[in-house]
Amino acid sequence: MRILIINPNTTHSMTEKVATAARRVVSPDTEIIARTSAHGPVSIEGYYDEALSLAGLLHEIRREPDIDGVVIACFDDTGLDAARCLTDRPVVGIGEAGYRMAAMLSNRFSVVTTLSRSVPALEHNLLRYGLERQCASVRASDVPVLELEHGKPEAMARIEAEIQKAIDIDHAEAIVLGCAGMTDLASGLAAKYQMPVLDGVACAAALVESMTRIGLRTTRKGGYAPPPPSKLTIT
Amino acid sequence: MRILIINPNTTHSMTEKVATAARRVVSPDTEIIARTSAHGPVSIEGYYDEALSLAGLLHEIRREPDIDGVVIACFDDTGLDAARCLTDRPVVGIGEAGYRMAAMLSNRFSVVTTLSRSVPALEHNLLRYGLERQCASVRASDVPVLELEHGKPEAMARIEAEIQKAIDIDHAEAIVLGCAGMTDLASGLAAKYQMPVLDGVACAAALVESMTRIGLRTTRKGGYAPPPPSKLTIT
Amino acid sequence: MRILIINPNTTHSMTEKVATAARRVVSPDTEIIARTSAHGPVSIEGYYDEALSLAGLLHEIRREPDIDGVVIACFDDTGLDAARCLTDRPVVGIGEAGYRMAAMLSNRFSVVTTLSRSVPALEHNLLRYGLERQCASVRASDVPVLELEHGKPEAMARIEAEIQKAIDIDHAEAIVLGCAGMTDLASGLAAKYQMPVLDGVACAAALVESMTRIGLRTTRKGGYAPPPPSKLTIT
Amino acid sequence: MRILIINPNTTHSMTEKVATAARRVVSPDTEIIARTSAHGPVSIEGYYDEALSLAGLLHEIRREPDIDGVVIACFDDTGLDAARCLTDRPVVGIGEAGYRMAAMLSNRFSVVTTLSRSVPALEHNLLRYGLERQCASVRASDVPVLELEHGKPEAMARIEAEIQKAIDIDHAEAIVLGCAGMTDLASGLAAKYQMPVLDGVACAAALVESMTRIGLRTTRKGGYAPPPPSKLTIT
Amino acid sequence: MRILIINPNTTHSMTEKVATAARRVVSPDTEIIARTSAHGPVSIEGYYDEALSLAGLLHEIRREPDIDGVVIACFDDTGLDAARCLTDRPVVGIGEAGYRMAAMLSNRFSVVTTLSRSVPALEHNLLRYGLERQCASVRASDVPVLELEHGKPEAMARIEAEIQKAIDIDHAEAIVLGCAGMTDLASGLAAKYQMPVLDGVACAAALVESMTRIGLRTTRKGGYAPPPPSKLTIT
Amino acid sequence: MRILIINPNTTHSMTEKVATAARRVVSPDTEIIARTSAHGPVSIEGYYDEALSLAGLLHEIRREPDIDGVVIACFDDTGLDAARCLTDRPVVGIGEAGYRMAAMLSNRFSVVTTLSRSVPALEHNLLRYGLERQCASVRASDVPVLELEHGKPEAMARIEAEIQKAIDIDHAEAIVLGCAGMTDLASGLAAKYQMPVLDGVACAAALVESMTRIGLRTTRKGGYAPPPPSKLTIT
Repeated sequence: MRILIINPNTTHSMTEKVATAARRVVSPDTEIIARTSAHGPVSIEGYYDEALSLAGLLHEIRREPDIDGVVIACFDDTGLDAARCLTDRPVVGIGEAGYRMAAMLSNRFSVVTTLSRSVPALEHNLLRYGLERQCASVRASDVPVLELEHGKPEAMARIEAEIQKAIDIDHAEAIVLGCAGMTDLASGLAAKYQMPVLDGVACAAALVESMTRIGLRTTRKGGYAPPPPSKLTIT
Repeated sequence: MRILIINPNTTHSMTEKVATAARRVVSPDTEIIARTSAHGPVSIEGYYDEALSLAGLLHEIRREPDIDGVVIACFDDTGLDAARCLTDRPVVGIGEAGYRMAAMLSNRFSVVTTLSRSVPALEHNLLRYGLERQCASVRASDVPVLELEHGKPEAMARIEAEIQKAIDIDHAEAIVLGCAGMTDLASGLAAKYQMPVLDGVACAAALVESMTRIGLRTTRKGGYAPPPPSKLTIT
Repeated sequence: MRILIINPNTTHSMTEKVATAARRVVSPDTEIIARTSAHGPVSIEGYYDEALSLAGLLHEIRREPDIDGVVIACFDDTGLDAARCLTDRPVVGIGEAGYRMAAMLSNRFSVVTTLSRSVPALEHNLLRYGLERQCASVRASDVPVLELEHGKPEAMARIEAEIQKAIDIDHAEAIVLGCAGMTDLASGLAAKYQMPVLDGVACAAALVESMTRIGLRTTRKGGYAPPPPSKLTIT
Repeated sequence: MRILIINPNTTHSMTEKVATAARRVVSPDTEIIARTSAHGPVSIEGYYDEALSLAGLLHEIRREPDIDGVVIACFDDTGLDAARCLTDRPVVGIGEAGYRMAAMLSNRFSVVTTLSRSVPALEHNLLRYGLERQCASVRASDVPVLELEHGKPEAMARIEAEIQKAIDIDHAEAIVLGCAGMTDLASGLAAKYQMPVLDGVACAAALVESMTRIGLRTTRKGGYAPPPPSKLTIT
Repeated sequence: MRILIINPNTTHSMTEKVATAARRVVSPDTEIIARTSAHGPVSIEGYYDEALSLAGLLHEIRREPDIDGVVIACFDDTGLDAARCLTDRPVVGIGEAGYRMAAMLSNRFSVVTTLSRSVPALEHNLLRYGLERQCASVRASDVPVLELEHGKPEAMARIEAEIQKAIDIDHAEAIVLGCAGMTDLASGLAAKYQMPVLDGVACAAALVESMTRIGLRTTRKGGYAPPPPSKLTIT
Repeated sequence: MRILIINPNTTHSMTEKVATAARRVVSPDTEIIARTSAHGPVSIEGYYDEALSLAGLLHEIRREPDIDGVVIACFDDTGLDAARCLTDRPVVGIGEAGYRMAAMLSNRFSVVTTLSRSVPALEHNLLRYGLERQCASVRASDVPVLELEHGKPEAMARIEAEIQKAIDIDHAEAIVLGCAGMTDLASGLAAKYQMPVLDGVACAAALVESMTRIGLRTTRKGGYAPPPPSKLTIT
């Protein structure tokens, strides 16, 4: 089985990190093909970055026709609906995957993300997925995406401060980490706080592998009907 | 006052049509600057087209910094949130404008749009705007966007059939026409069915003019905070 | 164009204030006809006052048949549905107008109103309009309506304290001022807090003018069907 | 115990009918004091009639200070919130009572009411009470309120036709009769359709008696805080 | 009239307490038949206890076929839907009864319950009943159910602390006590806080008596259809 | 890895069927331990059967402490919350699993289940999971659970009739089969209707395996806190 995982920003170190996280959870015979968008923003922090990452993201899907499933490795689930029009294979976003698994492991969960400018886009997704009631809060740590990459020491403290508030104030029973760049923090934080702390990358890779093994496909009806061939040459 | 109205597909005849509709409703001293996206799909019919129209749409906003407000002339409200990050002037989508005005003129309204593949994207927007309860139905006429341009005779019959069903079955008290290309049909249909039939282009142009005259601005806080300068050069 | 703006309480100084605010935003050739209810409460603070203001409000609409649109200048949107049965011209409440414009300028907004007894009535309206999710909070300043008229010095401090809490605690990106008597405060507060602060009077007057210019009418079907003539003589 | 039941329209025969229905369900030592509004519409069919019935309704409550509870005998629950500001005794509307009891006897219920113009007002109440999900449909029989009084033969057939559709199409498990004037039809229809058919008058009278016996009072805090004395002299 | 009230835990002192509370509010000629489950948990604190109390609860209903109505005296409304399949008489849970009466006496209410582990189950019920919007908060006092029975002195202080927070922070206008074991506290707390404080036992007993007097029955259609006889012998 | 899959009814042929379905989708090195409840109803069709199956279901979990995850193989997700209190390993219901996967493969899906008496319980679950908006309809085929076991020829025709209606009337883009006994029908129906047709058993088994491989656990906080040892001996 070949799963395509796309980092829709242009920062290669993040692609490597998410590929590692995905490979850790899939079967040995599942191949993870990790791709970085060739153009677009260096990080996705809010609506504007999302919009400018779409063309690059969709290009990566179109040039890999022979795959069994797709993971979109941006916590905003950038381009998820458009990607589902491009293939009948399962396509899962890491935000969606993290939320839906958290909803099966707890009564209510909180999201701890990067910048406050990203919060409305995440809340919009939660509403769309029907998880606005189970999500106790979306909290911004005010750690920019690329600081996670550069390992700034105070980043961890800020993330932990928001997790603690989610537990104490919002009565969260689980935490979803709200950025692909936090993928390596999940197990340590789960151990520290003795509660589920979910990394969406692992969740999404495992979900796509599961769906593919079952033989499930993305519907070709309604909103995910394939675009006419004439439109497939647009970049 | 200068209002920028962008047709985010590449079909110039639609741009002319929406410019005419906008000019009809604003004050004589308001200038309507109509732009067609330089690249992207020829029509926007669902999620995939939306995604590929975003870069072209945002480019048009960035190259017109000296405007007082923006109308996005696609009924899917393509790129609305991203556009609001780019300017502190009011930015209104024609779908949003049509829905919100219909909600002030009726207890429940129906949308009659083009293809069924567009319906989920519109329902998604209605939920996001909080209008999912006042919207009685989103009905597809199965008339493609460009057939509206080419004036195919049966197009009108299909649209009218759906309006009649919206009245009879869904108890709609008003109709919102679900495509920028239907802008010239509204007044005739309103007269024929003796009920409000709304064209989002007129609604959006008038709303942006109103907001600007009041002096209202798009917030710069939270989800619409401006992107850092480094990201403004991405195309 | 002639727009009727009705203050449904009996305090004439408020009528003058709202007339001034409305005239500031409409075209020079639009006439604002401001009326004060001839009987009813001196201020509208909650459900009971709303109920007793209705007969006076509707009387003012009936005795001005030759108008192009109506603004109800009470933030509770008192009598809005009943008024829409009386005329096929657009009828807009100042609460509704402020909320809907705020929803197009921000991801989430807060309302700062007068007394806490008014809060449930406003929350009820927000739910009805579908804006309960975009509204972050309705905050009472505990400034009575008529203190706003009398210019009591501490009133401003209490309003500003609630705006600050809306920003800090509720993450509001815009503020809607929750009383017709606050109409003259909006621009000063917008400048001070560097964010949209909306006065519903301006928003409603501009919206009615826009709708009228487009040629939109209130539906005559369903819940807004005109009452039979025999019922139009009741006072 | 003394329960005030107010018919907020001016048709005395309806007052007698509701008084009879209320007396049938309360204890022998509970006195039902039935009042007809002294002025207002002859029937309440939609928003406009509601608005014009409020002053008369509230007047009847104010002139009977020595009561233990109040029933508002209009299915639109006209003036319910305002009435609760006037007394600390329980105040229940017949719509509200019928809906809430139906919600405890079935998974989903339908409402069969008089004119289609009343439907949006009822749907608005259902949303406000949180019963929009348990209510399968609000169906209009197109029988005017006063035809129920005059015993027109075809009225019954139209009501039964809508009940049958509610069962067959909407999968209703119970029916709420949507007009005070239908109070005498409930038991016959329950027997005919072998399912719960609820008359809101009986439900509301029994609820107010129950609440009073328990010693429950309407809150004096927040939205139902009593108006200041100066406002109690307005009519 | 004979009303069966079942305590679905095995603690007899609680059964006596709820029987006393029920007898206080029904008519002298209504017989309250109080039963304790013969097996199951000693207290119901969360999902697991609920599940293990069901067989005992349903057994008590089946062995009392000749009753006019049923009260389930556990605030989680344990087994409510299953019980309604067993009889066509009204069946009311004490949580449901307390919530629905509070919703008619206030704009928003809070629940003060025992352990935090019970909160999600109560929130789940509130959503299901459509009262998630009117419920301002569900607050845990962290007083276990059986401490209420043993009259531990600090229990009262913890309950009062949460009531005060519900008033100050959540703007609750009424309080629903969230445990059958708190039934004797309601009137004292109502007097102390000068606001409605509801005991679900009294509310449910009065509701069942009211419904029975009106002649209302639980529907036999849809989800509450009676199980086939073969399944009635399972324990 | 050892996954416990419990059929909470007492029909062994269904247990074999679900074990086969589960084994087909998990890795060769994952052991599926299938158990049938030792007591309870022969089939679960609605609220009453659910209640009586709980003790048997929970008993099976308690007597297998050394497992890595649990699947509850009843489409009503019977006892799901209670089971999560008993173990920190992932516990997934087949209804929940089918719904959540369908929500990632389509914009809207329909459920085709057995008897109409089961519909409200499923709708209740959908609401609780936040999927009431993405679920277009829950349709009853009126095929009893055990007829599926006995292979009655008309059963298939009735199921297909409802699938066709879900496509034509409800615009479903995917179908979730609403009974564990339909597990062997999914791939044939998917091929016939050329759309996703989901069997919850496969979905749940794959999800539990995925979660376990990632190392995710059920939270021990809040509503899923483990019961005290004294309560673990109740049966």
